[in-house]
Amino acid sequence: MKLLITGGAGFVGARLARTLLARGTLAGQRLDKVVLADQFPPPPDLLADARVEARTGALLAQAAALADEGFDGAFHLASAVSGECEADFDLGLRSNLDSTRALLDGFRRVGKAPRFVFSSSIAVFGPDAAVAMPPVVSDTTLPAPQTSYGTQKLICEHLVADYTRKGYLDGRAVRLNTVTVRPGRPNGAASSFFSGIIREPLAGVESICPVAAEVSHPVASPARTVEGLIAVYEADRAAFGGRLAMNLPALNVKVGEMLAALEQVAGKAVRARVRFERDERIAGIVANWPTGATAQRAAALGLKPDASFADIVRQYIADCESGPDAAAALAGLKA
Amino acid sequence: MKLLITGGAGFVGARLARTLLARGTLAGQRLDKVVLADQFPPPPDLLADARVEARTGALLAQAAALADEGFDGAFHLASAVSGECEADFDLGLRSNLDSTRALLDGFRRVGKAPRFVFSSSIAVFGPDAAVAMPPVVSDTTLPAPQTSYGTQKLICEHLVADYTRKGYLDGRAVRLNTVTVRPGRPNGAASSFFSGIIREPLAGVESICPVAAEVSHPVASPARTVEGLIAVYEADRAAFGGRLAMNLPALNVKVGEMLAALEQVAGKAVRARVRFERDERIAGIVANWPTGATAQRAAALGLKPDASFADIVRQYIADCESGPDAAAALAGLKA
Repeated sequence: MKLLITGGAGFVGARLARTLLARGTLAGQRLDKVVLADQFPPPPDLLADARVEARTGALLAQAAALADEGFDGAFHLASAVSGECEADFDLGLRSNLDSTRALLDGFRRVGKAPRFVFSSSIAVFGPDAAVAMPPVVSDTTLPAPQTSYGTQKLICEHLVADYTRKGYLDGRAVRLNTVTVRPGRPNGAASSFFSGIIREPLAGVESICPVAAEVSHPVASPARTVEGLIAVYEADRAAFGGRLAMNLPALNVKVGEMLAALEQVAGKAVRARVRFERDERIAGIVANWPTGATAQRAAALGLKPDASFADIVRQYIADCESGPDAAAALAGLKA
Repeated sequence: MKLLITGGAGFVGARLARTLLARGTLAGQRLDKVVLADQFPPPPDLLADARVEARTGALLAQAAALADEGFDGAFHLASAVSGECEADFDLGLRSNLDSTRALLDGFRRVGKAPRFVFSSSIAVFGPDAAVAMPPVVSDTTLPAPQTSYGTQKLICEHLVADYTRKGYLDGRAVRLNTVTVRPGRPNGAASSFFSGIIREPLAGVESICPVAAEVSHPVASPARTVEGLIAVYEADRAAFGGRLAMNLPALNVKVGEMLAALEQVAGKAVRARVRFERDERIAGIVANWPTGATAQRAAALGLKPDASFADIVRQYIADCESGPDAAAALAGLKA
């Protein structure tokens, strides 16, 4: 089968590609070709796999050509992140809404009705003056996004549902939790600090937490997130249980508990590199996010949240140890 | 003030224009100019008013030019109807989604942040395999549209909310119930029969009801619908109570009750012109619509549903009597 992963050079996309290439199959079909579409080239280890091809460029510009390739399936992960979309309204509309629409229209035109997993986000949830948001959101919570990013994700959920109802796609939309711990550098996402406060101290670098220790948030490890994406792709439509987007399982955790887990796994000296300094812009965005999430429909697919945040910290350390940059990534742990 | 009404030559748009021109003011401002944008020219009585100008053409093509006119306010009513959108997917996307987006982007570019009322629809509600729809929907019911029309309306609600949050508009979205009794001829809406089973027998013409007498549906008279649109335009943002779309008050009525009211007002002979003959396509669409709706937030603005369906029938007859086509419209009543 031929598979497309948009955002395939990004952190989640590349990890998904590695996981799938190691398995060799998806939904019972052999993976013959995996196309990674991204504005950046994929990591070298992925390019070294004979089954992998890169399509590097803006998604909007190459959506029609991608559709023409006749994929059997796709994971659509490419997205501008929340902070970027707040700063640049046009960028968000173009990258998140117009690009998705172009991809859907392309698949419709080609007519193969590929299986299609869309990565939405818990950022679809938020409070509205007329409708209180429950502290813990569920699959049936009324979305009221408070960011352009969340709005665009919600809109695309409904586009995917309608193109699916019409038979143009076999689409499924899943709402990702904040993925942590991300490697690399901080990005433009307002949620970037949820990785930074673990990653930076482990690397021996000071990190600032822009929100209070009491702030609670639904998070998931990279491994659980990739597992969820694959399970939703492989689910029977009936088992998927409907056309509305599905929440993925979350570990609902407070920032203070994240730091306690860091100390438990990596020691007091590492934890001490994090200090609290409120950032009004970030705190304002985060205040409109849910403090936790449930995922009843995902549980019915056998999916579970991470067992503890300490497990998530250990997963990150293990990932770093197996990579070429282990020394830099864990400099603070070994100091 | 300069006001835009898209769909201004349509039934609801023209009635809204007449009502506003008779009042002479909107939200405390004198109406100096009312622009009716539509693919068809407005009725002659409206064109005869010195304050009225027509912009006739496809909305998508003229959205940018309309925005350049620098309106202080707008009612965006133009829309392809549900049956059309099911039959022609591209038409729905273009007329309902792309045109709204073009209008919003135009207003954003011009930078006057006009007050903007978007007419959404109760068609945003529907059942989903994963989420049961309550028989009677409310402002807080989770939308799960089962038509392209409902999907596009829901998407536009969220676009309006986000453009408003960013300060590009002062937008408000309201969900119209099925408006009945519409004059004229049947249109492409799946809900067209909700008018036809009253209008046709009053004109002396046989009418077929494509769904069972037990089918219940939220409806509103043209007068109540126009009253609701104006009230939402004039509401303070705080009184409007949030960025999410608001249901307008509905009379929840069964088809059998509609026909009983017709008989009560117009007599047995008129009622006898309606016969039941199930249409699977129409019945299938209607089966996914709510059987009733509540409108708590609209009630807080002082809005009420029609008191009875007999009142709605009487309103239609009175409207016909004051118009030039009274003889034809009421031929069956006078026979």
